[in-house]
Amino acid sequence: MPKFSHLDARGEARMVDVSAKPVVMRQAVAQGEIRLAPATLQLIQADRVAKGNVLATARLAGILAAKKTGSLIPLCHPLPITHCEVRFEIPPSGDRIRIIASAKITAQTGVEMEALTAVAIAALTIYDMCKAVDHHMVVSDVKLISKTKKPFAPDGPPSPARRRPQPPSA
Amino acid sequence: MPKFSHLDARGEARMVDVSAKPVVMRQAVAQGEIRLAPATLQLIQADRVAKGNVLATARLAGILAAKKTGSLIPLCHPLPITHCEVRFEIPPSGDRIRIIASAKITAQTGVEMEALTAVAIAALTIYDMCKAVDHHMVVSDVKLISKTKKPFAPDGPPSPARRRPQPPSA
Amino acid sequence: MPKFSHLDARGEARMVDVSAKPVVMRQAVAQGEIRLAPATLQLIQADRVAKGNVLATARLAGILAAKKTGSLIPLCHPLPITHCEVRFEIPPSGDRIRIIASAKITAQTGVEMEALTAVAIAALTIYDMCKAVDHHMVVSDVKLISKTKKPFAPDGPPSPARRRPQPPSA
Amino acid sequence: MPKFSHLDARGEARMVDVSAKPVVMRQAVAQGEIRLAPATLQLIQADRVAKGNVLATARLAGILAAKKTGSLIPLCHPLPITHCEVRFEIPPSGDRIRIIASAKITAQTGVEMEALTAVAIAALTIYDMCKAVDHHMVVSDVKLISKTKKPFAPDGPPSPARRRPQPPSA
Amino acid sequence: MPKFSHLDARGEARMVDVSAKPVVMRQAVAQGEIRLAPATLQLIQADRVAKGNVLATARLAGILAAKKTGSLIPLCHPLPITHCEVRFEIPPSGDRIRIIASAKITAQTGVEMEALTAVAIAALTIYDMCKAVDHHMVVSDVKLISKTKKPFAPDGPPSPARRRPQPPSA
Amino acid sequence: MPKFSHLDARGEARMVDVSAKPVVMRQAVAQGEIRLAPATLQLIQADRVAKGNVLATARLAGILAAKKTGSLIPLCHPLPITHCEVRFEIPPSGDRIRIIASAKITAQTGVEMEALTAVAIAALTIYDMCKAVDHHMVVSDVKLISKTKKPFAPDGPPSPARRRPQPPSA
Repeated sequence: MPKFSHLDARGEARMVDVSAKPVVMRQAVAQGEIRLAPATLQLIQADRVAKGNVLATARLAGILAAKKTGSLIPLCHPLPITHCEVRFEIPPSGDRIRIIASAKITAQTGVEMEALTAVAIAALTIYDMCKAVDHHMVVSDVKLISKTKKPFAPDGPPSPARRRPQPPSA
Repeated sequence: MPKFSHLDARGEARMVDVSAKPVVMRQAVAQGEIRLAPATLQLIQADRVAKGNVLATARLAGILAAKKTGSLIPLCHPLPITHCEVRFEIPPSGDRIRIIASAKITAQTGVEMEALTAVAIAALTIYDMCKAVDHHMVVSDVKLISKTKKPFAPDGPPSPARRRPQPPSA
Repeated sequence: MPKFSHLDARGEARMVDVSAKPVVMRQAVAQGEIRLAPATLQLIQADRVAKGNVLATARLAGILAAKKTGSLIPLCHPLPITHCEVRFEIPPSGDRIRIIASAKITAQTGVEMEALTAVAIAALTIYDMCKAVDHHMVVSDVKLISKTKKPFAPDGPPSPARRRPQPPSA
Repeated sequence: MPKFSHLDARGEARMVDVSAKPVVMRQAVAQGEIRLAPATLQLIQADRVAKGNVLATARLAGILAAKKTGSLIPLCHPLPITHCEVRFEIPPSGDRIRIIASAKITAQTGVEMEALTAVAIAALTIYDMCKAVDHHMVVSDVKLISKTKKPFAPDGPPSPARRRPQPPSA
Repeated sequence: MPKFSHLDARGEARMVDVSAKPVVMRQAVAQGEIRLAPATLQLIQADRVAKGNVLATARLAGILAAKKTGSLIPLCHPLPITHCEVRFEIPPSGDRIRIIASAKITAQTGVEMEALTAVAIAALTIYDMCKAVDHHMVVSDVKLISKTKKPFAPDGPPSPARRRPQPPSA
Repeated sequence: MPKFSHLDARGEARMVDVSAKPVVMRQAVAQGEIRLAPATLQLIQADRVAKGNVLATARLAGILAAKKTGSLIPLCHPLPITHCEVRFEIPPSGDRIRIIASAKITAQTGVEMEALTAVAIAALTIYDMCKAVDHHMVVSDVKLISKTKKPFAPDGPPSPARRRPQPPSA
């Protein structure tokens, strides 16, 4: 039977202990969508061509929210993410905006909650900015798309401090 | 043609000016759902009977998030809400949890974003707590259910200061 | 049998609904103490005469924490407090610092948690600043001292808007 | 000799007690500028015409910061502002961007620190976004432009609760 | 004469510079207690058996507060903790709840303030949830229990990047 | 033509991806000034000799703000800084206070925005504390003074875990 990673032997909530996990580069991508009236979407797009403010605001809200994930989701680790981006796609149906967020970190635990939080708050920001003209928006299909990790191998020459352990023959 | 309330004459983002709006009691109710494997739901329910931690954690996360809405959604007003509650329903299908959040305030503007934020963060908290056992959860159908307002008429005897302007004949 | 104000009919956590409570002026005073080695206290006092930094830092930490109470204590209402002050007393025993904090608001609910939070965080700040020289400090006796309320009767001439309802004969 | 409003009888820091001040509508306007290389400004403007991101980001950062003023400036009151806007002007000299921020509230104390904080953080956001191409930017002349107050007289029909004290003959 | 680590040569407050300290695994355990009426404790326990909400809420509040320590205690370093747990004990006297919090990190400085902050905020949360039925609660004996550190030796196979410096003969 | 590091191919705002950058020790120093009436400065200095509260408050506000930079400047990385200090100089002209802030970190990206944010918020805190006696203060000349980096070479004996990869012959 599977075990809930956040519940201790007596079922009480706790943060998962990642103290002994290796530090690796991790990336997560999440997506979601906000369904809205075609007329609302046209307004956003008209504005977007001219000034892009609805989506620009939602993008920043999503990035800022990703950085706050550890204080929003009670048992998430606070993580100094190294990258976050939020982008939007408008499917041909013309009745929704798809939100795709990616987060990265070099740490002992992953960033899927950061990517999901960025999507959710970006979607709610679109909702907030359009709610005066559209009373029937729905945020849906918020889910994880991918989660990857790889060894941390920084670019460029290793620093002297890092080079020290290197054997002369290497 | 409808107007976007958050965009000024030149289309730049701004908070809506509510300075001259009357102070009234406002309530908003939002809901959403997280779809998960029936086995995951059974685990949550088994735990819930015993100690209720997954849903208890999600409930608190939603309430705390409602209080932070003004710092999460860029153009929302910061609002000292007077009430927030989050509850859960499990439809007979047994494959999802419905999250219903209500927020109230006595202020110059409404709290629909607070209720929606509570739903979204409560759903993501369930996701976070179950992601070790279920990799296919989806947050969906996050939407506003109702939004009401009524005059502010405090309970009980008016305070002396409030009573002072009352005409003797009233 | 007394009832817990934060638990609903099914025992689930929720904020108390204060939407219909009258707006009155409220004040709360709390206190607590940190016990430390007399030598530590002498160091603080010597510094305090000269520059007062340990207590100045603790005072500001307490005031800032009072303003964050709604985001620290899950079911507290977020409250725009109108006043907070933190002061210190050193009893003749010379082995502790007493911390007294007062908070005020004109609102629908009281500020005892704000005063208590100011005391606790001010005490922990003293702990943090002295922990390099004293490993046996203890924070104790954190409690509410008083809690009062009175009608909101602003100083000075009422504003025209407020004066309007006043009957000519009053 | 003038008195510092934030220092008590013994010179210790404290929040000013505004509990008994009347609730009035208050507005403050502040401005400041960031000086940058003409080439940097041209890049911003070229981008601005197309997508406006540098200034759109700075605008939102300023608005969000205004909402956080009470947690940034230790002795400021936490204030639920009712409006904030940030706009930009480019003087003919072509070597700087002027930032103008306005904040409003219906409260017992004013919002000049909110307006100033919006200006400062908007300026630093421009700095952050351009620092890869310009190493000599300077933020200057951040100051208050105006500060006004007027009675709170909400728009539209008073609510029944407000109307009640009104004498029939008024 | 001992030196205060947070005061510079002129006695001004500053963060301790830990930039050159080694990165090691650190753990701290703190405890404290809240004294309350036996009847209050019985209410909590009755509820706890059924749904556990008072202690569940306090536990989450403590964990969330540990993550915020760097923004609450002015001279603490902001630390991405890798673990935090909060547990409760009820001594046979039946008139208090003991709160024990543990925090861990792999970093250049320790987490004793995180553990102490978790204890203090968990205790205040119990206070907040019971204050409608008990007006004489006292938070006491908040202190550090242990503080340990050990080399960072991640579990499992070292990542390729980490393995690289390893000499072939090792 | 130079490129804006924060704008992606389509000019949309994003955080710079620093995931693959090496971890090095970084320091940044920024400065700025607040111009005020000589009489205001004399008041601050008189107080400062006695208790130092205006500058002590500004110093702590600056340090706390440095720790919040990632939540204030939208595209900044959240960074667990290892050191921050803020100091003040009063030039012979007697009409301004110069604020100098330094921040350090061992990370994949630098801390110039942290140092600049500390300066700006310390300056605004002086403004806030003196605004009752001086209505003509101006914050000016906020700029970066230096930015350096060097390899991370922790003090003292390497930990066993770190020593392991070291070749026996080294």
